[in-house]
Amino acid sequence: MLEEGTLVFLRSANRKDSFLVSLESEGKLETRLGIVFHKEVMKAGFGGRVCSHNGNVFYIMKPTLGEYLRRIKRKTQIVFPKEAGFILLQLDIGPGSRVVECGTGSGSLTTAFAHFVGDEGCVYSYDAREEFVELARRNCRKWGVEHRVEFNVRHLSQGFEETDVDAVFLDLPDPWNYLLQVRSALALGRRMGALLPTFNQIEKLLRALEENYFVDIEVLEIFLRKLRIDPDRIRPEDRMIGHTGYLIFATSIAPLNGGVR
Amino acid sequence: MLEEGTLVFLRSANRKDSFLVSLESEGKLETRLGIVFHKEVMKAGFGGRVCSHNGNVFYIMKPTLGEYLRRIKRKTQIVFPKEAGFILLQLDIGPGSRVVECGTGSGSLTTAFAHFVGDEGCVYSYDAREEFVELARRNCRKWGVEHRVEFNVRHLSQGFEETDVDAVFLDLPDPWNYLLQVRSALALGRRMGALLPTFNQIEKLLRALEENYFVDIEVLEIFLRKLRIDPDRIRPEDRMIGHTGYLIFATSIAPLNGGVR
Amino acid sequence: MLEEGTLVFLRSANRKDSFLVSLESEGKLETRLGIVFHKEVMKAGFGGRVCSHNGNVFYIMKPTLGEYLRRIKRKTQIVFPKEAGFILLQLDIGPGSRVVECGTGSGSLTTAFAHFVGDEGCVYSYDAREEFVELARRNCRKWGVEHRVEFNVRHLSQGFEETDVDAVFLDLPDPWNYLLQVRSALALGRRMGALLPTFNQIEKLLRALEENYFVDIEVLEIFLRKLRIDPDRIRPEDRMIGHTGYLIFATSIAPLNGGVR
Amino acid sequence: MLEEGTLVFLRSANRKDSFLVSLESEGKLETRLGIVFHKEVMKAGFGGRVCSHNGNVFYIMKPTLGEYLRRIKRKTQIVFPKEAGFILLQLDIGPGSRVVECGTGSGSLTTAFAHFVGDEGCVYSYDAREEFVELARRNCRKWGVEHRVEFNVRHLSQGFEETDVDAVFLDLPDPWNYLLQVRSALALGRRMGALLPTFNQIEKLLRALEENYFVDIEVLEIFLRKLRIDPDRIRPEDRMIGHTGYLIFATSIAPLNGGVR
Repeated sequence: MLEEGTLVFLRSANRKDSFLVSLESEGKLETRLGIVFHKEVMKAGFGGRVCSHNGNVFYIMKPTLGEYLRRIKRKTQIVFPKEAGFILLQLDIGPGSRVVECGTGSGSLTTAFAHFVGDEGCVYSYDAREEFVELARRNCRKWGVEHRVEFNVRHLSQGFEETDVDAVFLDLPDPWNYLLQVRSALALGRRMGALLPTFNQIEKLLRALEENYFVDIEVLEIFLRKLRIDPDRIRPEDRMIGHTGYLIFATSIAPLNGGVR
Repeated sequence: MLEEGTLVFLRSANRKDSFLVSLESEGKLETRLGIVFHKEVMKAGFGGRVCSHNGNVFYIMKPTLGEYLRRIKRKTQIVFPKEAGFILLQLDIGPGSRVVECGTGSGSLTTAFAHFVGDEGCVYSYDAREEFVELARRNCRKWGVEHRVEFNVRHLSQGFEETDVDAVFLDLPDPWNYLLQVRSALALGRRMGALLPTFNQIEKLLRALEENYFVDIEVLEIFLRKLRIDPDRIRPEDRMIGHTGYLIFATSIAPLNGGVR
Repeated sequence: MLEEGTLVFLRSANRKDSFLVSLESEGKLETRLGIVFHKEVMKAGFGGRVCSHNGNVFYIMKPTLGEYLRRIKRKTQIVFPKEAGFILLQLDIGPGSRVVECGTGSGSLTTAFAHFVGDEGCVYSYDAREEFVELARRNCRKWGVEHRVEFNVRHLSQGFEETDVDAVFLDLPDPWNYLLQVRSALALGRRMGALLPTFNQIEKLLRALEENYFVDIEVLEIFLRKLRIDPDRIRPEDRMIGHTGYLIFATSIAPLNGGVR
Repeated sequence: MLEEGTLVFLRSANRKDSFLVSLESEGKLETRLGIVFHKEVMKAGFGGRVCSHNGNVFYIMKPTLGEYLRRIKRKTQIVFPKEAGFILLQLDIGPGSRVVECGTGSGSLTTAFAHFVGDEGCVYSYDAREEFVELARRNCRKWGVEHRVEFNVRHLSQGFEETDVDAVFLDLPDPWNYLLQVRSALALGRRMGALLPTFNQIEKLLRALEENYFVDIEVLEIFLRKLRIDPDRIRPEDRMIGHTGYLIFATSIAPLNGGVR
C-alpha cells in the first residue's frame, strides 16, 4: 500500500507513454490511454499493475533520480543525467559534502546535488532571478530534498557567503567573471566545474582559469546514444542529442607568494 | 597540516605527471621529476605546492572519486566514471541505499556505490574469485569506505542473501543466467543494471529480461571526448575511447498472476 | 544566362529555406517567402541573386551532388553523402569503373556511382520492384547521369548478368543469401560493400562472408556532426543523426583448391 | 599474370599484417612473417594466395583508393578517406572537374581529386614548399594519376593562375587570409572547402567568409568507428580517432553591387 504523497512512475505496458505522479487518495491521472485512479495505484504498489478505466495496463515503478531529472518542470536548459552523474564524481560530491551552485536555474542539478549530499551535507544555491529559485525549490521539494538546500536570491557579483566548501559548480553564461568569488568559497586543492555550450565561452574561461590559480584543467563533452531494444533488430536509435554543453573542471591552488590567503 | 594516511593527488606543474599518494610521515615518492618527501606535502597542505629534491614543482590536490576510480589497482576491466555516474542516477542510488553488486571485479563500482550510499547504506558485493574480493576490499579501504561493504566470495548461481534491495548491478559475462536471483533480491518496481561489451550478449539479455518480468528496458552507450585546453588552439583530443561497454537497465515487476510473490 | 533544364539550388538570404529547381522559361517557384520566376533566375545566373515577388532575396547556386542526394525523391531509406563518399573510396570506384548495385531503392547511391564512373564507366543496378527502378531512373536523369546506368528489374536470386566487375554494393535486408551471386559478378581480389542497420544482420553477414571466401572484412559506422555557424557562438547542433546503418566491406579471393575458377 | 609496376595489396591470412607493394619481377618483400617473392605474386594474380619462404599465406588484393590514402608516404597530417569522400560530394567534384587545391601537403587529397576528375579533368595543386610538392608528385604517380595534376611551387599570397574552376579546397593554417584569391579562381555559385583542426581557426574563417560574399556556410566533423568482426563477439573497437579536423564549406556569390566582377 503506497502512502499519499508518494512519487510514482507509471508506464503504459503497450506504448511508451509514461507519467510521473504524486499520489493523492482522490486523485486521478487522465491520459490518452484512459483515466487511472490513484487509489488503485496505492493498492497495487510498486512493481504492480493498474488498469485505466478503458482497460489499458500501466506498470507502477519507483521513479529514479535519472528519470526525475529528465522530467523536471523547467524554464531553462537543464543539466541531464549523463552530465550530472559525471559531475558528481569529478567534483567529489557525496554524503556530507557542502556544495555551492550558481545559477540555480530550474533546479535539476540542485536536486541531484541535494540527493547525494544526504542529510549531513548541504547545497548552497544562488540565482538572481527569484522565479527560478521558486521553481527549483518546488522541484527539490517534490523529490524530498528541499531541506538540504539553502537557496539564495542574489547575483554572483555580490559573492558567496560560504567558505571552505567542497565543490563549486557554475551554470552561468559568463563564469570567467566570477572566479574570485569561486576562490573565496572553495577550499584549496578542491575542484570547481562549469557547463558551457559554446567554444567562445570555453576560450574565455580557459584564459581566466589560468590567470586565477586554477590547475589540472579538463574540458570534455559526453554523448549518450540509445539502442532500440527489439532483440531481433538491435540497432542505435535514429536520432540522438548532438550537444548539450561542454564540462570544464579545475582545481584551486594557493597563489604563488601565499599572499592574501 | 595533513595527517598521516591522507590520500593526496600530486601533479607536476610543468608536465602531466600525476600521482595518488597515501601520506606516511617518513614516506617519499620517487618520480622521473625527482623525489618528493611526504613530510613536505603534509606541511604544505591541500592547494599548496611542493618541490622535488631537484626543483620540480608539484601541486597538492584533494583526489576526487573520479580520479581515484581511474587509478584504482585493477586485475579486470573496470567501470569508468562516465558510466559509474550515470549508473548511480539510473539505479536511483543515494545515501541510505542498499545495493547488490556482482561481480566485484577490481572494486571500482563497489567503491563508487559505497561512496554514495553513505554510512546509513550498504553495498553487498559478490564474486566467486577470492583474489578479486581481496583487491576490491583494499581499493575500498584506501578510499575509506570499506565499512559500508559486505563482501561475499560466492558464485551467483547460489543466489544472493539479501531481499528487497534498492538496486542490483551485474558486471558479468552472462547476466541472462541469473535473472531469477536478481528478482529475488530486488524490491519490486526497482531497477537493475548491467554492463556488457558485445551485441551478442545484449541480444541474450534482452530476450531473458522480457521473459522474466522486467520492463522499461533501456540499452545505451556513453562516449566521453576530451578537449585540449590551450585557449589558442581549442580542439578535441586526437584519440578517444571508442568503446567500454553498453549499459542495460530494466525494472522488475510482479508476475502477471501475482503467483508466488 | 542559364539554359532551360539547368538544375539550380536557390537559398533564401535571410532564412534557411532552400529549393532545388529545374529551370523552365515560363516556370515559377512558389514559397512561403514569395514567388520566384525562373526567367529571372536564368538571367541572374550562378552566384547571382533573385528577388521573390514580395522582395525576399534568394541566392542562386550550382547544386552539388551532396545536396542533390539529400533532396532526392525517395520511397525508401536512402544512402547519405557521409556514407556514399566513403563507399566510393573503399570500393575503389572512379572514372571508367564497372559497378553492380542491388537493390536500386530510390537511386541515391545509383546516382552517386553514375556521377563518378563517368561516361566510360557503367553502373548495373538491380531491383525486383519496378516502381523503385522507375523512381531511381528519374532521379538519375535529373542529375544527368541516366545514360551511365543499366537498370534491371530482377530479383537477385536470379543472379547478376555481369562478370569481372570492379565493385558490388548490396543495399538489401538479407545480403548473406546472395554471396554466390556477388562472387560470380565481382572480379577476384576486389571489394564488395553492404549497408545494414541492425547487429543481427551484421552477425549473419559476417558468418556468411567467412564461409564464402571473403577476406579483409571491415565493419564500421560513420557519424556526422554539424556545427552552428554564428562566429560568436560556435557550438555543435543540438540534434544529430544517431544511426543510419553500418557499412561492411570485404574482398573476394579464390577458393582454396583453386577449383572451378 | 600481373604486370610489372602493378600496385598490389598483400595481407597476411592469419595476422593483420598488410603491405602495399609495387611489383618488380626480381623484387621481394621482407616481413616478420617471412620473405615474399614478387614473381610468385605476379603468377598468382588478384584474388590469389602466395606463401612466404617460411610458409605464411598472404592474400593478393587490388588496393583501393581508400587503402592507398591511409598508407601514403607522408610528411604532414593527411586528409583521411572519411573526410576525402565527403569533400568530393560537397564540392561536386567528378569526371571532368577542374579543381584547385592549396596546400599540396603529402598529396593525399591531390591523389583523391585526381582519381575522380578522370583524364578530362584537372587538379591544380599549390604549395610553397618544394619538398612537399615532390612528395605529392611521387604519391600521385604511384597511383597512376600524376598526369592529371598541375603542381605549382608558389605561395598562395601570389594568387592562383586559374579562373572559373569548379571547386577550391584549402588545407592551410590561415585560410581566412586568402579568400580573395579563392574568389578570383572559383566560378560564381560554386563551393570552396577547408579543413581546420581548431575552433579558434573556425571562428576566424567564419568571420572572413561572411565578409567576402560566401554563403550557405557549413561546418561539420565526421567520426568513423570500427567494429570488431568476430561474429560471436560483435562490438566496437576499444579505441577510435577522436579528431582529425573540422570541414568548412561555403558558396561564392557575386558582390552586392555587381562591382568589380
